[in-house]
Amino acid sequence: MNAEILAIGSELVSGQRLDTNSQWLSQRLGAIGIPVHFHTTLGDDLEENVAALRVALGRSSLILTSGGLGPTQDDLTRDALAAVAGVPLVEDADSLAAIELMFARRNRPMVPRNRVQALIPQGAQALPNRVGTAPGIAMSIGAAEVISLPGVPSELKIMYEEQVQPRLRAKAGASGVIVHRVIHLFGRGESEIEAKALDLTARGRRPEVGITAHNATISFRVSCDGPTEADALREIEPTLEIIRRRFGSLVIGEVEGEDLAEALVHELAHAGRTIAVAESCTGGLIAAQLTKIPGVSAHFLGGVVSYSNDVKERILGVPRALLELHGAVSPEVAEAMAAGVRERLGADLGLSVTGIAGPGGGTAEKPVGLVYLGLATATGVESRKLNIGPEQPRDVIRSRSAKHAMNWARLSLRNESI
Amino acid sequence: MNAEILAIGSELVSGQRLDTNSQWLSQRLGAIGIPVHFHTTLGDDLEENVAALRVALGRSSLILTSGGLGPTQDDLTRDALAAVAGVPLVEDADSLAAIELMFARRNRPMVPRNRVQALIPQGAQALPNRVGTAPGIAMSIGAAEVISLPGVPSELKIMYEEQVQPRLRAKAGASGVIVHRVIHLFGRGESEIEAKALDLTARGRRPEVGITAHNATISFRVSCDGPTEADALREIEPTLEIIRRRFGSLVIGEVEGEDLAEALVHELAHAGRTIAVAESCTGGLIAAQLTKIPGVSAHFLGGVVSYSNDVKERILGVPRALLELHGAVSPEVAEAMAAGVRERLGADLGLSVTGIAGPGGGTAEKPVGLVYLGLATATGVESRKLNIGPEQPRDVIRSRSAKHAMNWARLSLRNESI
Repeated sequence: MNAEILAIGSELVSGQRLDTNSQWLSQRLGAIGIPVHFHTTLGDDLEENVAALRVALGRSSLILTSGGLGPTQDDLTRDALAAVAGVPLVEDADSLAAIELMFARRNRPMVPRNRVQALIPQGAQALPNRVGTAPGIAMSIGAAEVISLPGVPSELKIMYEEQVQPRLRAKAGASGVIVHRVIHLFGRGESEIEAKALDLTARGRRPEVGITAHNATISFRVSCDGPTEADALREIEPTLEIIRRRFGSLVIGEVEGEDLAEALVHELAHAGRTIAVAESCTGGLIAAQLTKIPGVSAHFLGGVVSYSNDVKERILGVPRALLELHGAVSPEVAEAMAAGVRERLGADLGLSVTGIAGPGGGTAEKPVGLVYLGLATATGVESRKLNIGPEQPRDVIRSRSAKHAMNWARLSLRNESI
Repeated sequence: MNAEILAIGSELVSGQRLDTNSQWLSQRLGAIGIPVHFHTTLGDDLEENVAALRVALGRSSLILTSGGLGPTQDDLTRDALAAVAGVPLVEDADSLAAIELMFARRNRPMVPRNRVQALIPQGAQALPNRVGTAPGIAMSIGAAEVISLPGVPSELKIMYEEQVQPRLRAKAGASGVIVHRVIHLFGRGESEIEAKALDLTARGRRPEVGITAHNATISFRVSCDGPTEADALREIEPTLEIIRRRFGSLVIGEVEGEDLAEALVHELAHAGRTIAVAESCTGGLIAAQLTKIPGVSAHFLGGVVSYSNDVKERILGVPRALLELHGAVSPEVAEAMAAGVRERLGADLGLSVTGIAGPGGGTAEKPVGLVYLGLATATGVESRKLNIGPEQPRDVIRSRSAKHAMNWARLSLRNESI
């Protein structure tokens, strides 16, 4: 079975709203072993709907659509399905009764227009919707199965889980599952990492290994199908182990979406240490990322956002002479901030960031993207220099600085150098 | 010109990552009057890329692709373009020089594999990438224009703005524009706001008005086409004025993506005041959002993330007795935090947040979602209580708390009550 997903709605294709249904459906289909090859997003236009359905029928054996099942004139999925199948629309008595009941229960008048929601292509099956007024539609067109669900994510999800997945599982039969695993790395460029993984990313290898980069975090994605999740995982595991061994301390996590904050907290927990942060150009970003994590208070004591020199002096105890002599963006001030926050907040580690995030404020000697990190521990204080590049936007400079700072603290807890 | 967008990446079509580039590109194309009819998402598979490009070439005169331009073996956009156009790949000398320079500037070794990023289909034009290593590609295939951009959103956006949009504007010529304007509101629910705007959101009204909600920020979206931007804006303006008047101080901004941080900084600038923040459950979120804004240092002095009671006492001067008597999540402590950060950082306003973000830590008296805000000014200190709801996830509780806090400070600067 090869699946394809159509998301229907002019507000989606015009960019006014973001389609999240296709991603969600892909994840759920993948989990039961049905690979998704295409997502198509299109507007509320009958001809385009018919054309897109025809393209999909030419290349996929399972087509899931979301949207276009409402009562308004721009809801055209029913009509497009009927046109492509060459059958008329007929009223489904059960659907009509369910829609009438839904309005009665909500004490809302049912306008005549709502009756169109009970129409389905002749020969199709209506899929009841217990949380909204739009029933879904399931039908065969040629050799393909087409299933249309409403676009409201909460309705789509319940209907998929309760009605579509059991149906597909039964059809897919013994075809098994697809399992994805991820390993995130930080500290080297994408091409440098790939050069050391050509044997893994080679085409046709099983399990399949892909590499993606997102804001300096590099991710290996390992995918494998198998009769059961346990079987697929057994096949994936040796590849994961190769990646872990080969990239060692570059590995920061193996959970989707986890990043340096989780990796640092993991090492803090392992070492039984606490940290405090002093942030200038990152302005609270490190603290905000660390405090996303539930229960982090055991290891994160707090932070100071020292956006002005006065706060660096008053709250962190950075000597004014140092600020005047070297400037706020200097290794000396980074070290004083780290030592100050460590001492004043009573933490094992003090971590600091001071830099020029831009777009203004850069000079020839201290360009935008110049950032100093400071790290204070029981054994002393050090600084590191980053050149993120004057061409980078403010948010990238802030986010990379935060990542590098947390990575340094993480590696220092492992007694490894950067 | 009919546009179509292809998002390329197996991690997108499998649902491992959400494609946001297509939405963004659609918005930008719409703004210059180029309607987008289809988005297609597909994996890193050469045959499927070729097939999807052929489908697109059959129905669209402008095709924008994102992704598949990296240095790794699964980056196949170059190859697919060359295959569809029936031309070989050739090395672009300028691109190669730019890639070499980028590596030299970052002091990182350039592996041989990076050379493939300088390859473009014969007859195509390379689009320089000043923030990453993957150049884009622009070429004509048949009657269509195809423009390929890297998948990294920050690179794609800069390249689109600087290179693609001017190019398309020139091509699109006199075909007119679609203009969207947004007005963001905060402080009331979506249905309450919609009930007061039924005349505006009625179907068939011109200009068209839609309402969307995102994490308690409610947005009116007003859209209109016209021969020129000025014409469309002239037609939009009276509707915007109705919204502004009707919703008064609920209006927090009129720039896409702007939120309470921008609204608060706007009022601080207007009033010529400074602020400092003391954050417990929001853990740096307010500071991080304020410091996203370039030049905010004139109004934001800094903040303290007082994640432990010890830090509340040591750095903010919250009396230990108060913490022991009322607990960290109490109006008394919120007020002491606000007064403390105002006084110690020397700001005009001190703003504080203390609450239970969950998922653990809730009790019958102090459930998850209970949050106190504190606001200290020259005239005194006050607190406010929020009940965000124990059913809400941690990130929603944190984000709503931050928004409510910034909104309170914003309204106090306008001498308006919440």
